[in-house]
Amino acid sequence: MPEKRTGGRSAVVVAQVRSAVEELVRERGAERVTIPLIAERAGVNPTSIYRRWGDLPTMLNDIATYRLDSDRPLPDTGSLRADLIAWAGEIVAHYAKPVNAALLRGGAASAGDTESDCLRNRRAEAQVLADRSSSAFAADDLIELVIAPIIYRVIFLPWTLTPELAVRCVDRLLCHTPEVASEA
Amino acid sequence: MPEKRTGGRSAVVVAQVRSAVEELVRERGAERVTIPLIAERAGVNPTSIYRRWGDLPTMLNDIATYRLDSDRPLPDTGSLRADLIAWAGEIVAHYAKPVNAALLRGGAASAGDTESDCLRNRRAEAQVLADRSSSAFAADDLIELVIAPIIYRVIFLPWTLTPELAVRCVDRLLCHTPEVASEA
Repeated sequence: MPEKRTGGRSAVVVAQVRSAVEELVRERGAERVTIPLIAERAGVNPTSIYRRWGDLPTMLNDIATYRLDSDRPLPDTGSLRADLIAWAGEIVAHYAKPVNAALLRGGAASAGDTESDCLRNRRAEAQVLADRSSSAFAADDLIELVIAPIIYRVIFLPWTLTPELAVRCVDRLLCHTPEVASEA
Repeated sequence: MPEKRTGGRSAVVVAQVRSAVEELVRERGAERVTIPLIAERAGVNPTSIYRRWGDLPTMLNDIATYRLDSDRPLPDTGSLRADLIAWAGEIVAHYAKPVNAALLRGGAASAGDTESDCLRNRRAEAQVLADRSSSAFAADDLIELVIAPIIYRVIFLPWTLTPELAVRCVDRLLCHTPEVASEA
């Protein structure tokens, strides 16, 4: 079993592949992108792509959200409402870029068998934010009241995506939790 | 310009095409279904398919939701909460079938340029239900609080889809509208 490469060369390959995917999705749409095409554009061997990501949907999901890296710091301003709005606003801004929305749609097409890294990362962040609320809301409430409406609009109604959506969704969430709402 | 056929022969073609799409999606997954394959399986000319639906995403969207036909009666029990739960529950039950979820994902992959018939139909229904609430909530609230969480789970977390989701989402919506909630 070959070990997964880390560091220098692997990081370069990942960066080349990400650029190639973003270019090809812009040019052709996510549904007409294939691993051989990506390998050719990135100048890497298809085998490197299969070894790193396994298959195309996993790769699209990963690349759709790498700018929302799970290592980035979560907003922490001292006001939970401000943190939630900043977090939701970052997700809206990310998917307001057509290439990121196209990648999300490509990932959606093949989703459903297991939870992707992207979902796991957002859920982990939702859990951190829910913990800050002293159980006023659960991670699931945050997913259903804030993430779901954003992702629904990104996929089906992208022209309705506005920064106000983040505020509206967060205020609905906090509306159920008066002690948090009054803190803001 | 040929007129669109209605009635007998056209209805038969539509039924054959729907069966063919459902079979092929079950066998291959929505992302590996093409119009030529569908035409072959349905025993119709590909031209008939292009003339009726225009392109594959439009057809997948249409077929994903035809059982939620816009002509079906909306629940009308006298209790708005019961109507909303029945309506949301019908949508959950529809997409709990793997073939319908796969079709939705196939449609999602190519969504985003215009509002599909499916979205328009759900929005029209949401408007009827919002009108019954005497402006206690708007159609958009119903879309964001009830439809979005259901569709998010259908696409990304189908194994979490339960009838309780419909109840939870409706009660969140009504939680903002005490006069309606107390009526139930």
